[in-house]
Order: sequence, then C-alpha cells, then structure tokens
Amino acid sequence: MSVWCNGQLLSIDAARIDPRDRGFTLGDGLYETIRVRDGRLLRLDRHFARLGEGLKLLDIRLKVDENALTGAMLSVLKANDLTGDAVLRLTVSRGVAARGMAADPTARPTVVISAAPYAAPQPARVMVATVTRRNAASPVSRVKTTNCLDSILARQEAARNGADDAVLLNGEGWVAEATAANVFAVIDGVVLTPPVRDGALPGVMRAAVMSHLPLGECSLSVDDLARAGEIFLTSSLGIRPVTVFEHIQLPVGPTATRLMQEL
Amino acid sequence: MSVWCNGQLLSIDAARIDPRDRGFTLGDGLYETIRVRDGRLLRLDRHFARLGEGLKLLDIRLKVDENALTGAMLSVLKANDLTGDAVLRLTVSRGVAARGMAADPTARPTVVISAAPYAAPQPARVMVATVTRRNAASPVSRVKTTNCLDSILARQEAARNGADDAVLLNGEGWVAEATAANVFAVIDGVVLTPPVRDGALPGVMRAAVMSHLPLGECSLSVDDLARAGEIFLTSSLGIRPVTVFEHIQLPVGPTATRLMQEL
Repeated sequence: MSVWCNGQLLSIDAARIDPRDRGFTLGDGLYETIRVRDGRLLRLDRHFARLGEGLKLLDIRLKVDENALTGAMLSVLKANDLTGDAVLRLTVSRGVAARGMAADPTARPTVVISAAPYAAPQPARVMVATVTRRNAASPVSRVKTTNCLDSILARQEAARNGADDAVLLNGEGWVAEATAANVFAVIDGVVLTPPVRDGALPGVMRAAVMSHLPLGECSLSVDDLARAGEIFLTSSLGIRPVTVFEHIQLPVGPTATRLMQEL
Repeated sequence: MSVWCNGQLLSIDAARIDPRDRGFTLGDGLYETIRVRDGRLLRLDRHFARLGEGLKLLDIRLKVDENALTGAMLSVLKANDLTGDAVLRLTVSRGVAARGMAADPTARPTVVISAAPYAAPQPARVMVATVTRRNAASPVSRVKTTNCLDSILARQEAARNGADDAVLLNGEGWVAEATAANVFAVIDGVVLTPPVRDGALPGVMRAAVMSHLPLGECSLSVDDLARAGEIFLTSSLGIRPVTVFEHIQLPVGPTATRLMQEL
C-alpha cells in the first residue's frame, strides 16, 4: 500500500505523521472522499471547492494546487493498482505545532492522499441516533472536518442495534444527516432533504442530486421520515436506498433507482 | 525532544503516527494535559478517571495500566530534562484502521506521551465567541476528546479581536466554557460555575476547585458574567484571572488569588 504524504509517494510503512501534528492532537483537519469510476475522479471540482471552504473557515493556509493534487491522486491510484473503481481520500491538517489550542499561522499543513478499493453502497437499515446530536449551531457542521466523534458514536449505536447507519438529529430535534451521508426522503411524491442550516453537510453528491432532480430543502422530523414512501442516503460513494427506517420496511424506490443509474 | 509512542521512548523524528490512524483521519481520540510541579504529577488519579470515562464512551478498548503509563510519563520528563515544572500530554486514539466511520473493535489503540516546559497562565482578556457554539447535547462535550475545532475557531476569533481567550456558549445561549478552560464567576459574593449539562467539560481543576471552596453550579448567561465581581478560568495548568470580559475591566480578585496559592 502506497500513500502520498507531504509531496512524496511512499509505502505506508515509510509514511509518517508527526505525533505533534494538530490533525492527530486536536482533530484540526479536513478531508474529502472522492469516488473513482473507471479511472475517472468524479466531481473533483466540487470536492476542491468544499475543501477550499473548509480551509478558509479554519484559516489553514494551504495553497491548493489542483493540478498537482490531481496528479498526486492519480499516482496513488496507479501505485496501488487501482485502475478501475476506487475511493480516494485527501486529508489536510494544520500541521505540526507546539502544544495548546492557539493556531500558528506559519505552520506547514500536512497533506495525505490514500486510496482503497471501491464497494458500492448496499441497501441500509437505518435508525435514529439517540446517543448524540449534531451541532448545527457550529460552522464546523458546514465543512468536512476530521471532528467525527458524533458520527462515530451514532454509527456504534447503529451497530449495537443491528442497523447499518443512523440519522443524527440537531439540537432542536430536526433531521440533520446520517453518519457519513445526506438524507433524502420522498414524501407525498416530493423529494425533500434537510437544509444546511439544520446541520446537513453540504455533500458533493447532495449537490449533484439537487441539480439533477426537482426537489425541496425543508426541515424534516423523524415523523416526516416515518411516513416517507422512499428514503435514501447520498455520499460521494453513491446512492444508498434505505430499506428499513426505525423498524418500518421501505421499498427500493424509483427515485433512488433512477439516481443510481444516472449519477 | 523525546516522546513515548506505543510503548517506546523515541526521539520525535523517529516517532511515527500511521497516516491511517483514526486519531488523524477522524479525530477519534482522547487526551489529558497534566501539570507537573517540582517533578510531581498533579491530580493524576482524576486524569486517569476522566480518560477512563472517555474510553468507555467511545468504546476504545485500551487497558489502562496506570503504573506503566505513569512510568512512561516520568521517563518522558527525564528524557526531556524537565525535572521541575512541566506539562505532560497523554493522547490516546483508536489506532490504525481501514477507511470509513465504523469503528473496528479489534484495532490497537495508539498511545503518545509528550512533555513541554510549563508557563503559568497569565491574566486574560476574554470575549464571548460569536463564530460557534459548544454542543452541550453531545456526550462528546463531557469527555476530553481530540475534536477541538469549535475551540480552535473560538480561539482564532479571540486572537483576531485582541483577546486571549473566548467563552463558548451552548446552543441555548448559556455559558459553557472557555476554549480550553472552565469558567468561574463570583456574583453577589457567590462563586458559580456552569453545570456539565450546559457543555462545561468536567475539568480536573474544576473538580479540584469545587472540592476546595463552597460554590454553586448554575447556568450562567453573558449578562451574569458581565455583572460578576470576579471571573477566572481554570485548567489543569492552573487558575487564570480574567481582567477584561467583553471590554469590562475586572480586578484579580481574592478568590482567584487564594486558589492560585492553595491549588
């Protein structure tokens, strides 16, 4: 296994994150997960745009050279013999620093690119997480950061309960998102998804779905989801039909089926 | 500089976090900051207890051998010639894993111990963070994790505004804590601090202050702090008087002065 680490393609055993890296010590980082289909990097412009939003919010001063990073991603795919379908991950942290919360603006950001085989998302049994809530009141909910503990706790709760994923609610009880995917529901024939202000990450696939179908952004309650005719999750990895929501059986509906074919 | 990394005392350049470590990729970790005074590790039992709470919440299966970890901390101090005052940091992550949010219960946790010189907290100018809110609705707010982005954003806002630290409010607008410290206020002669349910981390020094002085846990508003006769911050590093709160000048009061001498 080979990874790109701060400008070098290295075998995983030679790649090193410094123990003082703020990505490790404080979760001070961002990431993007990029789907590779038949060797093509899907929606890369949208991933770079969102990474840019995150860097700006956190004031991480990485000059993003899109061509260089794209070249690095291709080299990682090649080195790992992932020539067809794959998943790339680009991680950026603020880099090595002395202890303490204050960010050093002169720190050199850390950039890691790794790749893994692709597995298509399978139909999911989904519950509502009770263990935690998503912080819609934080701008951190609007960029893709490495502060993932609420999602991790919700995913663990799902696993303990025989579910594949969990929907997180925000502090006010509205549906925000799943642990690593956006939530869509077809209710009374209308496709709906929670707005970003409710804690939905502005997902790259979410945006692709929104520009592909007529649909509405609308605060959704658990009761709304419970009466939906169709629910599906979206992430950069694909469209994932929900076949069980809180013990309610659901069909793999026509909207998800269409999106799986067209996106 | 030497650090302890997964059972070995290493020079920092030889110490390596794997780029796949979930501490780096997902912020899936915990830490403790321990004050060392004249070579003595202060309140170590309370730090181990809180670490244990965090491991339990996150289901990170590290068998904590307190004696071994204490020995490792002492060896780090010695290797760095920090024989008097110092600050230790113990970081635990879930360890190396394949991509994805789901936690692998068989992963071997990563343990890092580092040390730094001690600098006593200085009187602070403090503002109220407007950029973000603390997620009191998440159990993550009740253990000391490496998901620090809300604190980092608030600290950056403070720095941009010429302040040393910022108070974070929770989603409902109550005072939660400062970016890496608990908040205490003396109001009408009574010492008060926000309850854990409002998003206050159960700080080790907070607990020490609470068992040292008669005081009350009580939800505090910004207006409450604005009319306080004395405000101070507490962290494992010590007691930090607040001399400016939102442009209001405050004295270094008798409570903070007493605590600085006695704790």
